Amino acid sequence: MSGRLYVVGVGPGDPELVTLKAARVLGAANAVAYFAKGGRRGHARTIADSHLPADVEELRFDYPFTTEVALADPRYLADMGGFYEACAGRLSERLVQGGEVALVCEGDPFFYGSAMYLYDRLAGRHPVEVIPGITGMGGCWARAGQPMTHGDDVLSVLPGTLDEDVLVERLKGCDAAVIMKVGSNLAKIGRALARAGLVERAIYVERGAMAGERIAPFAELTEASAPYFSLVLVPGRRGAR
Amino acid sequence: MSGRLYVVGVGPGDPELVTLKAARVLGAANAVAYFAKGGRRGHARTIADSHLPADVEELRFDYPFTTEVALADPRYLADMGGFYEACAGRLSERLVQGGEVALVCEGDPFFYGSAMYLYDRLAGRHPVEVIPGITGMGGCWARAGQPMTHGDDVLSVLPGTLDEDVLVERLKGCDAAVIMKVGSNLAKIGRALARAGLVERAIYVERGAMAGERIAPFAELTEASAPYFSLVLVPGRRGAR
Repeated sequence: MSGRLYVVGVGPGDPELVTLKAARVLGAANAVAYFAKGGRRGHARTIADSHLPADVEELRFDYPFTTEVALADPRYLADMGGFYEACAGRLSERLVQGGEVALVCEGDPFFYGSAMYLYDRLAGRHPVEVIPGITGMGGCWARAGQPMTHGDDVLSVLPGTLDEDVLVERLKGCDAAVIMKVGSNLAKIGRALARAGLVERAIYVERGAMAGERIAPFAELTEASAPYFSLVLVPGRRGAR
Repeated sequence: MSGRLYVVGVGPGDPELVTLKAARVLGAANAVAYFAKGGRRGHARTIADSHLPADVEELRFDYPFTTEVALADPRYLADMGGFYEACAGRLSERLVQGGEVALVCEGDPFFYGSAMYLYDRLAGRHPVEVIPGITGMGGCWARAGQPMTHGDDVLSVLPGTLDEDVLVERLKGCDAAVIMKVGSNLAKIGRALARAGLVERAIYVERGAMAGERIAPFAELTEASAPYFSLVLVPGRRGAR
């Protein structure tokens, strides 16, 4: 016997942008599991708050790094592997007690989410269901009023952590692009957009679909870095239609 | 004075995968507008059905082509431009009567949706709000249990209508891919995946999150073409985590 794990995408920020299915599952959950960073409750847990029962049991997974360790650092992969293994162990222990456990994730669970590392470890051992969510980029392009892909457009989603030359090459090979993980990569992204001839088309979105939202043409930015919840949209071709 | 237009993404197929916001807007709509093809009611209208008031007014836009005209055919762009212009005119006429009109779209409105051609024509003339939806691909990768993008993965969304050589090149330039518009392009897509060395990683999803769903390793397919609601997922790298 085992309880059931739901991996629940809670969307980009607005609690009304969760699906009916996610709201139903959250409302019936015996326990909620979530990642947290630097002593804070975590963004996904906050979005889910109004949908959860008042007496829901909490399983909180605190990331081992309070400051960022580079992804390329071998310690990172090793430590994160151990961390995810420990989280999966705790979830598994909770699941054998029965009931329904909701692991909540901002955006969509399978789109750059930590939850997939727990999914990979638990899917063969317990009943698991994944509930898709509105991605952060989907929330942003709706708020920005930017139709992204038309007809036969190629869309590429690019982490801003890529090398500048790689960014330029990838930008040239698509019609529409979303650049994630902007943060401290903002200046490099600006240079890459310029080299690809795309600065004039690019739109910067900060905290899209959240409090403190800001939407601006990329060309008008003056700062050198951006907050974590920011991305750049390069809308696709607009045909003659 | 004008009524208000909501451009509403209704998700990939399961009516429970609409957002709370979409359900609220649909439930209060005075009129629902939708595209339809070949005499059928249209997929988006069907998904929205259980959320709409019983007495909702219907604005139906029948596509001018009952058989497919090639996208590259000059008649296509010209005729579609006229068609979208006429649809926007009908919506505008309805909006000046006041009330709330929901233009429903399968998946997300700004991600390969016809609704954006009406958005482009109406956004400056009437109050318009866009409500994002779960994309078809998001519904498919959740159902297929395939985490798609990890860490610094590049994801590319590729229309299967692209030339084989272009498909191969784009597939080689990303870590994860989604190939849309499979249909009659299935054999060509198979050749492109083989040339990019990706057949073994590719997953075929037909009617994901709908009745009649089918999920299979691409390598096991034997047919020469696929139905409209099908796509191919190539999940990204799985790190050591």
